[in-house]
Amino acid sequence: MADTPVETDVVIIGAGPAGLFAAFQCAMLRLNCLLIDVLPEVGGQCIALYPEKPIYDIPACPAIEASQLIAQLEKQIAPFNIPRLLKHRVDDVSGNRGDFSVKTDKGTTVKAKAIIIAAGAGAFGPNRPPLEGLEHFEETGSVQYYVRRKADFANRNIVIAGGGDSALDWALALKDNAKKLYLVHRRDRFRGAPESLRLLDDAVAAGQIEKITPYQLHALHGENGKLSAVEVIDLDGTTRKLEADTLLPFFGLATDLGPIATWDIQTARSVIPVRPSDCETSRAGIFAIGDIASYPGKLKLILQSFSEAAMATHAIHPIVHPDQALHFEHSTTRGVPATA
Amino acid sequence: MADTPVETDVVIIGAGPAGLFAAFQCAMLRLNCLLIDVLPEVGGQCIALYPEKPIYDIPACPAIEASQLIAQLEKQIAPFNIPRLLKHRVDDVSGNRGDFSVKTDKGTTVKAKAIIIAAGAGAFGPNRPPLEGLEHFEETGSVQYYVRRKADFANRNIVIAGGGDSALDWALALKDNAKKLYLVHRRDRFRGAPESLRLLDDAVAAGQIEKITPYQLHALHGENGKLSAVEVIDLDGTTRKLEADTLLPFFGLATDLGPIATWDIQTARSVIPVRPSDCETSRAGIFAIGDIASYPGKLKLILQSFSEAAMATHAIHPIVHPDQALHFEHSTTRGVPATA
Repeated sequence: MADTPVETDVVIIGAGPAGLFAAFQCAMLRLNCLLIDVLPEVGGQCIALYPEKPIYDIPACPAIEASQLIAQLEKQIAPFNIPRLLKHRVDDVSGNRGDFSVKTDKGTTVKAKAIIIAAGAGAFGPNRPPLEGLEHFEETGSVQYYVRRKADFANRNIVIAGGGDSALDWALALKDNAKKLYLVHRRDRFRGAPESLRLLDDAVAAGQIEKITPYQLHALHGENGKLSAVEVIDLDGTTRKLEADTLLPFFGLATDLGPIATWDIQTARSVIPVRPSDCETSRAGIFAIGDIASYPGKLKLILQSFSEAAMATHAIHPIVHPDQALHFEHSTTRGVPATA
Repeated sequence: MADTPVETDVVIIGAGPAGLFAAFQCAMLRLNCLLIDVLPEVGGQCIALYPEKPIYDIPACPAIEASQLIAQLEKQIAPFNIPRLLKHRVDDVSGNRGDFSVKTDKGTTVKAKAIIIAAGAGAFGPNRPPLEGLEHFEETGSVQYYVRRKADFANRNIVIAGGGDSALDWALALKDNAKKLYLVHRRDRFRGAPESLRLLDDAVAAGQIEKITPYQLHALHGENGKLSAVEVIDLDGTTRKLEADTLLPFFGLATDLGPIATWDIQTARSVIPVRPSDCETSRAGIFAIGDIASYPGKLKLILQSFSEAAMATHAIHPIVHPDQALHFEHSTTRGVPATA
């Protein structure tokens, strides 16, 4: 990037669904904006964690896959050519309402009048099991934490570890095309929807899934990072070796506000409390929306983040144009210029 | 309807986009609900007033026509077979949180534990011009207040009256297929988007629209309700007769809370103030969402009403199931049963 600071009206930190729709709302109010995300592509968790997962509660989009949701949001902002800085992590925010300076880990500086934090779970990552040599097996893809394309797991000998929804749902989703599928959990009971638990029982009875309970992961075997077996252990110390080329541990997501915690914004247990009427944080001119924002009634639904994006953007308008009253019009009245 | 009262968990008053999505949210939380609307079909203003109008800011639905939005929301709730009472106006609400009794103008009584008011602009209707014999011309369709299908106005001699967005936009939308199009306004200036004003100048210059300003509607001429001419008058009392078979007055929407004003709910200038965290009104157990609800930060956007629907429904869950903790799950986790 050039040494000259980039200038815009609004910096949007995080390019998941909340950030993308905030960019659309900025464009509708004729505010310039810039999207920044640490990931190499837009979409946040929808793309990085579960692109093929259907989402049922996006209004007017019954059962849309996460990646399709992002594609639709991209289509909605396409006419506006919103600039974006990908693979950039915002490390520092200085200045005040109307005159902020945002610095990324790549040394880029962006000047902006307001900031919207739409960083979801922050710097999210999987909870990794404490196994010796794990990183070598991760490098080769023998150990993975996300299923981005189901097809990649066909004809494999798979160990899935975990007792929650993700372990259960992916076991059910991958069983038909796996060569062998073990499901390892330290308890006999799984947490999941009654319907999923019933399907698990069926798959176990049909020999499609072998339940290994109560066992925990103990060691990985293989050479040059290529997995050959997963060793598990029960409470009495008895071990078993499961022949496998793939391990998928689903032990939840470790979330971390990362550098945000140092931006002089009030935070509370990995979320940012905001004023419900406009999503402004404790630091004037900085707003937070989506999963990272918290207020009474917050539900962590994507659909709620869309509303938050609209409220924050309307509140930002007078910061950018203090002398210009926002004559608010419904989008049906004016619409989007075809080539704007 | 039967004399036995209908029973449900949640009565939703108003079946526009907010009400339809509230029904979906009820279904996702396994609450029974019943939709009631005074109109003969669901969709509210989207269907009754502007079915062919594109809406630009529904998240992930770039430029969706209002009728298509309703069709998509219907598709989303289709698996749940939500019951509905159409052509019913709710006249009276008695009882308390957890035990309400709702009476319609057709004599139907519905028992419910909670109520969501999603009545939009209330009992909305057009502002009608004070012209003698107007109702006869309305009956034949010579005078209409909404353009539901553009095709119905092809090859007509049309007078459009009004100076705002609706008059302007419909003049532009109908000019290509009209035989003749007059645009009557009592001032020389029109209120509208700069781009629309420019298009109007072009259409006037090209002879597609004849501007009649500053004139007001004065009288209707014709026989048996069939319009033959619209008489207009200027500030000096000079009149002109415009040969026309169709008059479209666009003088705005008269909104009216109607019977709601008598339900012992705090109201303020045609809206209902609600608690932002869950959209509860001043009367416990009765919630209001969508255009009729008001709170700090309210924008009257359809997308915001979706979020309000989710918040209200989550707040209603403990009213219906006081002994059952809502173990909240994202819709991606559980999903909608295919045949529920």
